[in-house]
Amino acid sequence: MNSASPMTDAAWAASKRNPVVGVFDSGFGGLTVLRALLPRIASANYIYLGDTARLPYGAKSQATIARYAVESARFLEERGCEYLVIACNTATALALEDIRRAVKVPVLGVIEPGVQAARRTIAEADGEVLVLATTATVQSHAYREACAAVGLRATEVACPLLVPLVEEGWTDHAVTREVLRIYLSEALRKCDPQAVLLGCTHYPLIAGAIEQTLRDLGSAAVVIDSAEATAEAAEAELATGMEAHAPGAEAKFECFATDSVEKFERLGSLFLRRSIGQVHLLDIGG
Amino acid sequence: MNSASPMTDAAWAASKRNPVVGVFDSGFGGLTVLRALLPRIASANYIYLGDTARLPYGAKSQATIARYAVESARFLEERGCEYLVIACNTATALALEDIRRAVKVPVLGVIEPGVQAARRTIAEADGEVLVLATTATVQSHAYREACAAVGLRATEVACPLLVPLVEEGWTDHAVTREVLRIYLSEALRKCDPQAVLLGCTHYPLIAGAIEQTLRDLGSAAVVIDSAEATAEAAEAELATGMEAHAPGAEAKFECFATDSVEKFERLGSLFLRRSIGQVHLLDIGG
Repeated sequence: MNSASPMTDAAWAASKRNPVVGVFDSGFGGLTVLRALLPRIASANYIYLGDTARLPYGAKSQATIARYAVESARFLEERGCEYLVIACNTATALALEDIRRAVKVPVLGVIEPGVQAARRTIAEADGEVLVLATTATVQSHAYREACAAVGLRATEVACPLLVPLVEEGWTDHAVTREVLRIYLSEALRKCDPQAVLLGCTHYPLIAGAIEQTLRDLGSAAVVIDSAEATAEAAEAELATGMEAHAPGAEAKFECFATDSVEKFERLGSLFLRRSIGQVHLLDIGG
Repeated sequence: MNSASPMTDAAWAASKRNPVVGVFDSGFGGLTVLRALLPRIASANYIYLGDTARLPYGAKSQATIARYAVESARFLEERGCEYLVIACNTATALALEDIRRAVKVPVLGVIEPGVQAARRTIAEADGEVLVLATTATVQSHAYREACAAVGLRATEVACPLLVPLVEEGWTDHAVTREVLRIYLSEALRKCDPQAVLLGCTHYPLIAGAIEQTLRDLGSAAVVIDSAEATAEAAEAELATGMEAHAPGAEAKFECFATDSVEKFERLGSLFLRRSIGQVHLLDIGG
């Protein structure tokens, strides 16, 4: 955590009753994090940015991902966000420090909260975690390092077909189950995990199928949704100094996409599990 | 065909013995067009550009695709290319006229040659064509319009999972066959085509599986590879005024990618079916 963290900046947190929270992802996946945040910090105003013109980040290089992510984070800061959630595993893995250097507000990534949740779940001191993620996230070994820091061994497996399957809407489909069987049986030959970390914000939409496939393959591993874990961590940080919000209060959110707002409106509602309303087109990086 | 076409500019063609040909795609797929060009116009020097930092184009909007494609075409022109092949169905469908306006050299797209090949294949005056393509290409209806112009009816079907399956290397795989069975059986409920046009330059790598699936589903449709059709059209245009090249002559080519040259070198050799050599990193659109 850098010096701008809200935990070391209690005065900042105490001054905020209705913080403006920026949530950033390369596309729609981060909406699973926004969905988890809305009921937890209902007094906040959210600005979501999906960099859909340049998605997916998962197969791109560190330099390119860092450039795109920093541009997006700066937009959210200029737009008035006082706290940023990088709701994208690839951007967290490859660009979290670049983003923290580029903006003045506190920045939370998705990897640390997911790994902390795995640590709390696993009783064994030297437990084993299976991380499912994009190619770029796996190659960064960000999860392996974060796990090692809390005494967990991580096996990281790239699952490049899962994002297109989710975006095709095949979340409950025989092909998706077969692809999961192939990826997971291959992975379970390499490790015997107590927890499986969903290291991509698209994967919560197929969490049930992942859990079922693990059971079918004889694994009792607990599936950890890093979107939920991240929302919990953001709540813990932002709650400092905030008054409890009224029960049933509705958080406000506003969405921006760098491309094709029609597709965003259609797919976005699927990820958010509610109507996403009007999405604004944003021209950055052009 | 615009006024800069080599067919109406015989003086240009006649002056060239070793033309520099630019081949552009959003990623690796266009290498199937380059592969088809190399033996056909062996006296040419080729410059290939894959805009890998911003791929895939298939799910993006017209304005974004046109902006990216024009930047790439300008780079190739500045680099000395005297003839451009847009080896990308999405860029051809959505940005061919923008590219032609932006550069001075002749520009050939992949759609027209594929449709012409279908027209030659189908005996019936009012034949029926099934076009398999990305979401953006389908939504543009560029194939439907090009087919209508030569008296063919086209049914356009988006197959968004095929590109990731090819890029995963699952070109000969049960999951790919099952996905093809789903896409094609759905498509054949809507039409009874005499030809199936591969409207994406990734698809030639699974042309065999597509043909087999059609047969399994009771269709005798001929599969038309637009990469081959485009190379044939380019040869016909460029051959005007060129001396016949020496048998066995080796065309020279040079590759640029906007991201991750390592991945390009690995996947590129698969698409090109030969070693791709060193790939140069190009920073555009930053």
